[in-house]
Amino acid sequence: MVATIDLNADLGEGVGDDEAMLGVVTSANVACGFHAGSPILLARTCVQAHSRGVAIGAQVSYPDREGFGRRYMDIDTEDLRADIVYQIGALTALAMAAGTQIGYVKPHGALYNTIVSDEQQAAAVVAAVRSVDPRLAVMGLPQSLVLALARDAGLSTIAEAFADRGYRRDGTLVPRGEAGALLTDSAEIARRVVELVTTGTLTAVDGSRIDIDAKSICLHGDTPGAVGHAQATRAALLGAGINLAPVIRR
Amino acid sequence: MVATIDLNADLGEGVGDDEAMLGVVTSANVACGFHAGSPILLARTCVQAHSRGVAIGAQVSYPDREGFGRRYMDIDTEDLRADIVYQIGALTALAMAAGTQIGYVKPHGALYNTIVSDEQQAAAVVAAVRSVDPRLAVMGLPQSLVLALARDAGLSTIAEAFADRGYRRDGTLVPRGEAGALLTDSAEIARRVVELVTTGTLTAVDGSRIDIDAKSICLHGDTPGAVGHAQATRAALLGAGINLAPVIRR
Amino acid sequence: MVATIDLNADLGEGVGDDEAMLGVVTSANVACGFHAGSPILLARTCVQAHSRGVAIGAQVSYPDREGFGRRYMDIDTEDLRADIVYQIGALTALAMAAGTQIGYVKPHGALYNTIVSDEQQAAAVVAAVRSVDPRLAVMGLPQSLVLALARDAGLSTIAEAFADRGYRRDGTLVPRGEAGALLTDSAEIARRVVELVTTGTLTAVDGSRIDIDAKSICLHGDTPGAVGHAQATRAALLGAGINLAPVIRR
Amino acid sequence: MVATIDLNADLGEGVGDDEAMLGVVTSANVACGFHAGSPILLARTCVQAHSRGVAIGAQVSYPDREGFGRRYMDIDTEDLRADIVYQIGALTALAMAAGTQIGYVKPHGALYNTIVSDEQQAAAVVAAVRSVDPRLAVMGLPQSLVLALARDAGLSTIAEAFADRGYRRDGTLVPRGEAGALLTDSAEIARRVVELVTTGTLTAVDGSRIDIDAKSICLHGDTPGAVGHAQATRAALLGAGINLAPVIRR
Repeated sequence: MVATIDLNADLGEGVGDDEAMLGVVTSANVACGFHAGSPILLARTCVQAHSRGVAIGAQVSYPDREGFGRRYMDIDTEDLRADIVYQIGALTALAMAAGTQIGYVKPHGALYNTIVSDEQQAAAVVAAVRSVDPRLAVMGLPQSLVLALARDAGLSTIAEAFADRGYRRDGTLVPRGEAGALLTDSAEIARRVVELVTTGTLTAVDGSRIDIDAKSICLHGDTPGAVGHAQATRAALLGAGINLAPVIRR
Repeated sequence: MVATIDLNADLGEGVGDDEAMLGVVTSANVACGFHAGSPILLARTCVQAHSRGVAIGAQVSYPDREGFGRRYMDIDTEDLRADIVYQIGALTALAMAAGTQIGYVKPHGALYNTIVSDEQQAAAVVAAVRSVDPRLAVMGLPQSLVLALARDAGLSTIAEAFADRGYRRDGTLVPRGEAGALLTDSAEIARRVVELVTTGTLTAVDGSRIDIDAKSICLHGDTPGAVGHAQATRAALLGAGINLAPVIRR
Repeated sequence: MVATIDLNADLGEGVGDDEAMLGVVTSANVACGFHAGSPILLARTCVQAHSRGVAIGAQVSYPDREGFGRRYMDIDTEDLRADIVYQIGALTALAMAAGTQIGYVKPHGALYNTIVSDEQQAAAVVAAVRSVDPRLAVMGLPQSLVLALARDAGLSTIAEAFADRGYRRDGTLVPRGEAGALLTDSAEIARRVVELVTTGTLTAVDGSRIDIDAKSICLHGDTPGAVGHAQATRAALLGAGINLAPVIRR
Repeated sequence: MVATIDLNADLGEGVGDDEAMLGVVTSANVACGFHAGSPILLARTCVQAHSRGVAIGAQVSYPDREGFGRRYMDIDTEDLRADIVYQIGALTALAMAAGTQIGYVKPHGALYNTIVSDEQQAAAVVAAVRSVDPRLAVMGLPQSLVLALARDAGLSTIAEAFADRGYRRDGTLVPRGEAGALLTDSAEIARRVVELVTTGTLTAVDGSRIDIDAKSICLHGDTPGAVGHAQATRAALLGAGINLAPVIRR
């Protein structure tokens, strides 16, 4: 049996090297205009992703273009639900106009982090996805509340791991700013991802070996170095005989 | 045979008395956020329209919240097409989350006026509608270029007349600012609409009788007086035994 | 000696009856575009306030037009400071173009509430005001942290009381939703404001008499009832021989 | 006598290499948020410009973030005036918070081109500048209507030439898309700018020698090549013994 993994990255944000990343990933988390991206940029990103066989997900955000969606907002859940529905719909139409369809929804930035544990906001995101199209999957952290609620609601989920982040013994990420939070060596990043995909385990920052259940690996493309890491990771996975494919293709 | 007509009005713009107008119209042109309307307001407008049996159309605009979409923009057609697709998609999803579907697209403000004669922008709007869902109709002026291009592309069209505007002998509207441009008497407005629906003709500003081919009547609801005109028009149509129904219901 | 009080209200937000409120207040908290208000609306509001002798303050907000500035944002203090400077500058220029000057800054909505107790955000607001013009006063709640920090920084402050809100024994407002939170009788509202201005005390919700140190009274104008309350309050103050004047006039 | 010239470039737009360009130019046209730039980015750009002795101008735009200010808008002149006042004020305050002041206003993109010949919009820009601060200069094309109106209104003006653009015999730019519109060789660009500054003339695309009256040279920094051209131009000017200094310093 051949191991298969999905590689995802954020695209259509007007930062980073989208062209290069489309040659690396199998799934593109395309922005929806609420933290970044104009309709024409998003439209072109959908066209390019489709032409290269890359699956598309809606990267939904708090309404915060000024802060790139990175700031927590104490938003009413009914408002949040409408915001998410609006964004999924907008990207769905852009994908359809490009001859394809979106397959999943990936919350962005502060929203991504909030719905790891905030039940109200997590429930609003799940309700939004479900009300637009129950065939859409939700991408997030393996143990996040949002994925649990999504499963409870009958939605597919895509648990993801981060290629360039250190993990603690309990499976959570080493917080940014702490030692071991960020990996910066391409070879090490690539080696860890291969380890993760082939064994389902990763070496934590304290040296212990931990289980990580991930169907997709999140790569970054917003710095020249990041693109290099992403390319090295892809090459290492292919070199190890691992199959690269989107989790959801429509 | 009973004559049937559709009554449409702009809703979800955060101006005017939406509650009252939902009791008058059969079709709601719901804003899409580019000239007015937040996602939560649009979501609620869709829910209310659906609960009252009012059909929903996407009222698409130039990206101009500051100017309420009333300013001409010399926008690249590829950009415009992406803007329109984005808006239709967003409202489609909000309508679906409300348990219903949109049936048509009505361009707003300066865009509405531009695509009466601007071939490039009119073609961009038609292409946008068609690429999202070819079952969507396009609403506009009877002799407008956008409706002609929509028909050529195989789309349904909804020609509309204006209840409170004067017409010239050639079937065009008396420009605002000229004598006879705006009707302000409820009884006269209502009488003219009944005349139009029952005879297919209207008395122009010069006293001549002209043919107007309209499937829908556009009403306004953004002033207290306008709501009164709309209510009087509805009452007069019902009193004349005319059936009120949306052109497109999905 | 004649008692003097300032009456302030939020204007330029595109909601409520600005025209009527300009006939009531002595200070206008003019929006700055971050929660409401386009430049042209703000410009006109400055012109009208100036022509009626009403002082102008900058009503600054989180960048949250969609939520009308009512949602807490976990915003970096350097970002917040730049946001506040930007808004004060914009309104300063609009006031200058109208032949007048702004005299104070009043934070709006969720920001107003946050900086009652959040030291980092309160300090950011104070630093922003000071860096633009140290002659600007800061308006807020009497015991708020932001007013304390403003005084420490050498800025003038304007403590305000709310005409239509109930107070608890400790001088804080009865939270919305609790009994006695909102006063709805014009005569009672007017009587309480006169009591407050003439005695410096107010009857709390539990019947106790409490000291309130306020130089300005905040009135609301975004509902027809609210305008009536505001007008009744003004009339009662004038009837009691109290002088109405802005705290800061420039 | 030593010849002196100003070098200007657009900064704070979130595109291009601001850091590199601040080492080249003597004047920074800092965006104001209407076509690009968040308050924090603009604040930081002001701080950096000031710390490197670079003068600051307000780069004002149509309200068109989605289109980067590149699209003509048929905007009411009263609206446009308020938009410009708002932007100048915002950047003025950010500059003050950075310990400096703005010295001039440079319209951006489609607005820049429109007010070369559109009298109403040009007059609105001039009126806006004058109403905020009559000591501010206006930067634009030598023969543009906006500079003529600015001079008539008593404002200082800064005529500029473009380093990397071809000129026609009549002193206008070769339109983009035509042969000779864009210069791409660093050495040639640098040589032409030195020629212009030392002789007041330039070789037009047809080989004729034309007079160009410019106090400032506009450089671009939004592509790696453009930064190289800018650096080569600066080096050539210094090598030719020409003094580099802002036209307006405050």
